[in-house]
Amino acid sequence: MKISITEVAPRDGLQGMSNPVSTADKITLARRAAAAGIRRIEATSFVSPRAMPQMADAEDVLAGLASLDNVTLEALVPNIRGAERAALTPVNDWVCFISATESHSQANTNCSVDEALTRIEPVIELARNHARTPVAAIAVAFGCPFEGVTPLEQTMKLVKSLSAMGIQRIKFGDTIGTATPRQVKRLAQALNAQNPEIDPVLHLHNTRGLSLASVLAGLQSGITSFESSIGGIGGCPFAPGASGNVATEDLVHFLHAEGHETGIDLSQVIETGKWLEERLGCSLPARLLRVGPIGTVTPLNNAKRARG
Amino acid sequence: MKISITEVAPRDGLQGMSNPVSTADKITLARRAAAAGIRRIEATSFVSPRAMPQMADAEDVLAGLASLDNVTLEALVPNIRGAERAALTPVNDWVCFISATESHSQANTNCSVDEALTRIEPVIELARNHARTPVAAIAVAFGCPFEGVTPLEQTMKLVKSLSAMGIQRIKFGDTIGTATPRQVKRLAQALNAQNPEIDPVLHLHNTRGLSLASVLAGLQSGITSFESSIGGIGGCPFAPGASGNVATEDLVHFLHAEGHETGIDLSQVIETGKWLEERLGCSLPARLLRVGPIGTVTPLNNAKRARG
Repeated sequence: MKISITEVAPRDGLQGMSNPVSTADKITLARRAAAAGIRRIEATSFVSPRAMPQMADAEDVLAGLASLDNVTLEALVPNIRGAERAALTPVNDWVCFISATESHSQANTNCSVDEALTRIEPVIELARNHARTPVAAIAVAFGCPFEGVTPLEQTMKLVKSLSAMGIQRIKFGDTIGTATPRQVKRLAQALNAQNPEIDPVLHLHNTRGLSLASVLAGLQSGITSFESSIGGIGGCPFAPGASGNVATEDLVHFLHAEGHETGIDLSQVIETGKWLEERLGCSLPARLLRVGPIGTVTPLNNAKRARG
Repeated sequence: MKISITEVAPRDGLQGMSNPVSTADKITLARRAAAAGIRRIEATSFVSPRAMPQMADAEDVLAGLASLDNVTLEALVPNIRGAERAALTPVNDWVCFISATESHSQANTNCSVDEALTRIEPVIELARNHARTPVAAIAVAFGCPFEGVTPLEQTMKLVKSLSAMGIQRIKFGDTIGTATPRQVKRLAQALNAQNPEIDPVLHLHNTRGLSLASVLAGLQSGITSFESSIGGIGGCPFAPGASGNVATEDLVHFLHAEGHETGIDLSQVIETGKWLEERLGCSLPARLLRVGPIGTVTPLNNAKRARG
């Protein structure tokens, strides 16, 4: 099965960094991801530079990536002001965020879910006017820090609203790393039954170690698009035990081990993860940055006795 | 589905510790596991105390656990000398190790796989004479550090030999953390088709982050017995990126989230993991030691803005 991976490190991974990453490094990161064979990159965010100075260089990052062939660039476009900026850049996919719960919507965007839907209408319209593709991302689609497990019906209600607005591609965000294989399977079944027109993308965090099990359940349910970040950055990798997105290194390794095609060169992804560790000056959570892929062989004469 | 978990921290987890753990702490660890509802504990090893001083107190550990009700105690019994010691203790399940590859067998026990099979024959006989249960553990059942991926046929050949020797319970050891969901599924299918008399136990390491995906594949294939260690100790948890057994905290959390019964109180397992961190003086890899279980709710007024 051919799997599509969106690299989200330049946006979801870097947006929370306390030390800003240079524009040049962001461009290098995205270019290395593209060189490794990744065909979709969430490159930046048109959020207000006052709210998130880490993303203030959105235009410059996109300008630095404009020459990439065969890569779809995505950017977060939270509101009409962001949309007006995005329209002046070549970014094709405009990602609008919506929370699946009222509490998260209030905490994140100071408005209700219905108000948030109303707020993205003009963004979608402007995207269409500029021949761009509006995309939706549902935050806390599986679980919410304030409300617990998100009921499937609540997420599906939002899917229907977004579909009615003409959205075809929806990212399902496992914002706090609570998605389970069972939830992923039930979501896929509901989408197949009720909204087969939607192209779903799974955006998983590995906070509780479940992400690859949920990827497996997604694959078994026919989902073929996933998001991940090089190094596993995102969330808050510097706090003890916190965890970012599922790492691109680990996801690609897993997919290949399971016999799926990604078109991605794992060794180049790993080299990029190591490069990113150097630039950020810290270890990152991706496991394949620490150990060789399955099938790595040690010469027997170098062996230490290994029991168990 | 009711799942059986064997706690292996007292043996597989602690055997590699450079600082020895006191006998009293080992007994406390196993007793806390039992109090949390774990019904099988791999308590110690009758390996030569010269080869592995960490396990020299095998008799004392078992004496300290003799009063536990409704718990099956297991111990590694590598050879006839170990068997003679085990016979003087109350331990019921005697675990014999066999490597699935010639290179690992040579590195680990200085003999061929056939010689290793011959060597465990008298152990099995002595176990029977003392009304104990001989159990086999196949090391490198999925992958070998010296030979790469272990062919399924090679593992199944060993299953047949062990079955012919009267073994019913076999632990399949993912010694270097390379087992994939696909391998687990194929193994389960082969066992069902060729050796349905065997009761399989999956012993997974989380080195490449795949362990819970492989557990999921095992569950889907009818496997209901798994091994794990509190804290995720084992392997070499102190080396960067190394990883021990799948953590009992994370496995139990995952199984409950997927709707399976274990009879285990997750909060007591987590408390035991925290206690173990204190005793060992370091952080352990279990993710549930760092974050709350799925469904944990933060009051909205404590919320920080969380994006993505």
